[in-house]
Amino acid sequence: MVLRLSTLFLRTLREDPVDAEVASHKLLVRAGYIRRAAPGIYTWLPLGLRVLAKVEAIVREEMNAIGAQEVHFPALLPREPYEATGRWTEYGEGLFRLKDRKDADYLLAPTHEEMFTLLVKDLYSSYKDLPVTLYQIQNKYRDEARPRAGLLRGREFIMKDSYSFDVDDAGLEASYQAHRAAYLRIFSRLGLEIVPVYATAGAMGGSKSEEFLHPTEVGEDTFVRSAGGYAANVEAVTTVVPAEIDYAGAPAFEVKDTPDTPTIDSLVACANAIAPRADREWTAADTLKNVVLAVTLPTGERQLVVVGVPGDRAVDLKRIEANIGAHLAAAGELGVEAATDEDIKKVPALVKGYIGPALGLDAATLGAESSSGIPFLVDPRVVAGTTWITGANEHGKHVFGLVAGRDFAWDGTIEAVEVRAGDEAPDGSGPLETARGIEMGHIFQLGRKYAEALDLKVLDQNGKLVTVTMGSYGVGVTRAVAALAESNHDDRGLVWPRNVAPADVHLMVTGKGEELFAEAERIAAGLEARGLEVIFDDRPKVSAGVKFGDAELIGVPTIAVVGRGLAEGLVEVKDRATGTAENVAVADVVETLVARARGWDLPRP
Amino acid sequence: MVLRLSTLFLRTLREDPVDAEVASHKLLVRAGYIRRAAPGIYTWLPLGLRVLAKVEAIVREEMNAIGAQEVHFPALLPREPYEATGRWTEYGEGLFRLKDRKDADYLLAPTHEEMFTLLVKDLYSSYKDLPVTLYQIQNKYRDEARPRAGLLRGREFIMKDSYSFDVDDAGLEASYQAHRAAYLRIFSRLGLEIVPVYATAGAMGGSKSEEFLHPTEVGEDTFVRSAGGYAANVEAVTTVVPAEIDYAGAPAFEVKDTPDTPTIDSLVACANAIAPRADREWTAADTLKNVVLAVTLPTGERQLVVVGVPGDRAVDLKRIEANIGAHLAAAGELGVEAATDEDIKKVPALVKGYIGPALGLDAATLGAESSSGIPFLVDPRVVAGTTWITGANEHGKHVFGLVAGRDFAWDGTIEAVEVRAGDEAPDGSGPLETARGIEMGHIFQLGRKYAEALDLKVLDQNGKLVTVTMGSYGVGVTRAVAALAESNHDDRGLVWPRNVAPADVHLMVTGKGEELFAEAERIAAGLEARGLEVIFDDRPKVSAGVKFGDAELIGVPTIAVVGRGLAEGLVEVKDRATGTAENVAVADVVETLVARARGWDLPRP
Repeated sequence: MVLRLSTLFLRTLREDPVDAEVASHKLLVRAGYIRRAAPGIYTWLPLGLRVLAKVEAIVREEMNAIGAQEVHFPALLPREPYEATGRWTEYGEGLFRLKDRKDADYLLAPTHEEMFTLLVKDLYSSYKDLPVTLYQIQNKYRDEARPRAGLLRGREFIMKDSYSFDVDDAGLEASYQAHRAAYLRIFSRLGLEIVPVYATAGAMGGSKSEEFLHPTEVGEDTFVRSAGGYAANVEAVTTVVPAEIDYAGAPAFEVKDTPDTPTIDSLVACANAIAPRADREWTAADTLKNVVLAVTLPTGERQLVVVGVPGDRAVDLKRIEANIGAHLAAAGELGVEAATDEDIKKVPALVKGYIGPALGLDAATLGAESSSGIPFLVDPRVVAGTTWITGANEHGKHVFGLVAGRDFAWDGTIEAVEVRAGDEAPDGSGPLETARGIEMGHIFQLGRKYAEALDLKVLDQNGKLVTVTMGSYGVGVTRAVAALAESNHDDRGLVWPRNVAPADVHLMVTGKGEELFAEAERIAAGLEARGLEVIFDDRPKVSAGVKFGDAELIGVPTIAVVGRGLAEGLVEVKDRATGTAENVAVADVVETLVARARGWDLPRP
Repeated sequence: MVLRLSTLFLRTLREDPVDAEVASHKLLVRAGYIRRAAPGIYTWLPLGLRVLAKVEAIVREEMNAIGAQEVHFPALLPREPYEATGRWTEYGEGLFRLKDRKDADYLLAPTHEEMFTLLVKDLYSSYKDLPVTLYQIQNKYRDEARPRAGLLRGREFIMKDSYSFDVDDAGLEASYQAHRAAYLRIFSRLGLEIVPVYATAGAMGGSKSEEFLHPTEVGEDTFVRSAGGYAANVEAVTTVVPAEIDYAGAPAFEVKDTPDTPTIDSLVACANAIAPRADREWTAADTLKNVVLAVTLPTGERQLVVVGVPGDRAVDLKRIEANIGAHLAAAGELGVEAATDEDIKKVPALVKGYIGPALGLDAATLGAESSSGIPFLVDPRVVAGTTWITGANEHGKHVFGLVAGRDFAWDGTIEAVEVRAGDEAPDGSGPLETARGIEMGHIFQLGRKYAEALDLKVLDQNGKLVTVTMGSYGVGVTRAVAALAESNHDDRGLVWPRNVAPADVHLMVTGKGEELFAEAERIAAGLEARGLEVIFDDRPKVSAGVKFGDAELIGVPTIAVVGRGLAEGLVEVKDRATGTAENVAVADVVETLVARARGWDLPRP
């Protein structure tokens, strides 16, 4: 295959597009791979479509290799199935909704759990039909509030989404692990560095879940990892729980007047003034900060919760959001925000600025009146025997030397505070560092949520109806193109990994002699005959400088130049990534380029 | 590639789907190729997706072969470009419209002329950049009033649409002819009988246009053809104009009282009563019927037109609609309907039931008052010297012996009446017969309509800005799958042509011996090694009858049966289309099947 630049539909641009902030967006537009049609909506030009097709082919091969079967659903779908699972409303403004000429409600699907569930229900009825895994590579739609970074967060984009159907948990685990392995192979073949991180299931429901993040500064997701190999997104990190402390000799707690200390800083200053320690100063870590939160339940109801955390840690609402469901026995998306003054005023037991746990082990709820009924959760660092300065539930008063498990109890523990660089990894693999990444894939054990909502049951071996258990697995296909561009470029342009490059060789003629063009044509034909894909810059009146600039911008791995050297029978072969150039005898140039394209020149592992 | 029926996601159905009327719809659902998701919206199951991919590959190869370059546009598009060409409103209820979260208007594109025009405008600026032809294979959306016949008329469907851009008419003609030839090759390779018919451009604007119809009874398009090779859709047929008649000796016309003759039948009866002919009876063909039509202009204005046609021919509003534009100097879609009584009452010159041409050659308009300003068009059969009985523009009176060109004139001729079987083909190739077909492709010379609306100009050789001329070309890809199914089935199921079949061989085991399964596995592996695609019915507990039924329903070209014959070393090889079976020695069966799949067993042309 030879793409001639004299006819290829391509116009490289010198200027960055005005709306572009990240390198992949700038370069994919400038090098003529994509073109914006509307905010977050892109057209694929010939070079871009070639890269996209190669990414799709790799994804398809690896999905087929684990026995997943390809189907293709519509993008335009009726409301009813999404109504049945609640997602018609749960998706909020992120869903593109429309009506047809008969005023029936439709949506542009953001993901297809409902339709796959219904399809399997429609055709299958027995445990003998399972397991089955189905997938599609298909257009998805999300009306992002802030489409950004070109293909990284678009409103129309391509995903590979697959769904596994099993009769039992062991089957789901096997399907999940098969996908996990396939995803690692996919990203490895794409040449895309990936960190699989533990994740929470979020709005998808379900239990076990991992994200496949591509580490890059421009990523929107923050995650943590240790040198020893632990990695998780911030919502999913679990705190290393300290050992309980023997409090046998601990003195009794004391309530002290601490006027004008509604903040942790003012409290610490006051504590050092009125009750100085001999060994060191009090710090924020010695205080227990009790934060009142308002959780919006799927019913729309507003539920207050108090969370007690060490005073030196900021509360992380996203981490709470990801973990609060279990404590409230509420499924679906929960909104968590700081309670307002009005919320707090409604509960007499809550004294703003001086909130503390209820004193005494019998009262497993907050405040002077345990009847307030507000759940009291604590950070996992609050273990029995830890001693705290905290609010006394009276204006202007705090309690000193309050011992957890001796003087107060709690309803449960929750991951509620920020994760910091230097925190220990939960698996003991060392201190965590934080990093940013792009979510390239996500695998979920959905469990029975969708099967229950849509009544997908099969007969088991004993003739009993059992609810099917499902997994859901996604790869961002168009996003992968952007991530590849983001992590494979230099200041002159793109530098594609071989497996996804739009061509194997970028062949050009520099100079004007007819013999140069004739020789380049022979080389192009030779490469094509050997099955290579060639971009051939055959433009007769374009300067060598412009041709080099275009070649470096487009980013094909190997550049071959038929120019001055031809007089001595030499063609220059240059590596786009390293810039290394060598002169190759004309007679050998096709074989040299074939060897490079096939990786034969690489050191054996 | 071996698809095992023990694991393939497939459930064949005995019952036709309740909403299915045509064979392709019934069989594609029953054989597990597609599944309905909503009215006119289908899911592609694994077998269907395989056929679809093969159709797409053939289309892609032939488009690439004429130098067309593949791109891919979004389906979700902003309103503005479609507003600029007027199609945002012209499409009426057929367009899916929606709003994003910022209340901006979007549409699901029914076709992409605007976007391709803008893309070329965006990137290209010189005659040196042209010609260029771009195409995509992409989801289209049309909110059909009556989605029907499964994939034949869907609301989400796949089209290949391409667009050519040339600097001049000769270039457009070359691009058009290249597409025409490519389309004939595509349909030939698909194994789909095609009749290219002359068509009118309709709402697309432009001049020259041909449809590629697949003749079948279930088609929605009526077309005509002659034994001599002429073919046109009904809107585009031109009438054979009779020779003018020398009217030197014709008697003068006479106005006669014809009370109660508002219809042609009553007029003919009256004429035979009051003015009988010696040689024969008067018939409807002797009368000139003057029909008042109301044309809705793109401006919304309602324009009356009178059309004079032989009384034995019914007016065909669609043919008038396709041809009226030229007479009114109006572009875009024109609605034509019969004028209402209210319309007619507003013009005193129009005497309902007794309308005739203005008498006298000077009055090139209708009615007693030429100032009525209503255009008077006639059927092409109304040539100088033809003699008519027609309305006298007075209640209860007709005029007899009125000679065209002597006694009345007209503003123009128009194709206004039904085409009948037996009418002569315009190219003299014999009488026409009518037939029905499915529109599989359509090619248009758009000309400069879109380029003008969206200001697509390039600099020509003299440095002058010239407007680009465009062609637009479509192939219904999902529709092709349906048409293939429609024309390749029998009462037992589908009978796919080799080039698009989901597999080359349907291999099955009948019986229970382990050696049967072992041998079938060896054959499957042998076929796979030779690059064949195999559906392998390896289900252990399914009866031979059910297996045969499924094989015939699914419709792969060759069925191979490992069963009783194996004891004598024989495998049955059966042709799905003809039912012919032969026993082949086990040792030869792979080579026999390879030869069939590659067509080596066919007679050489």
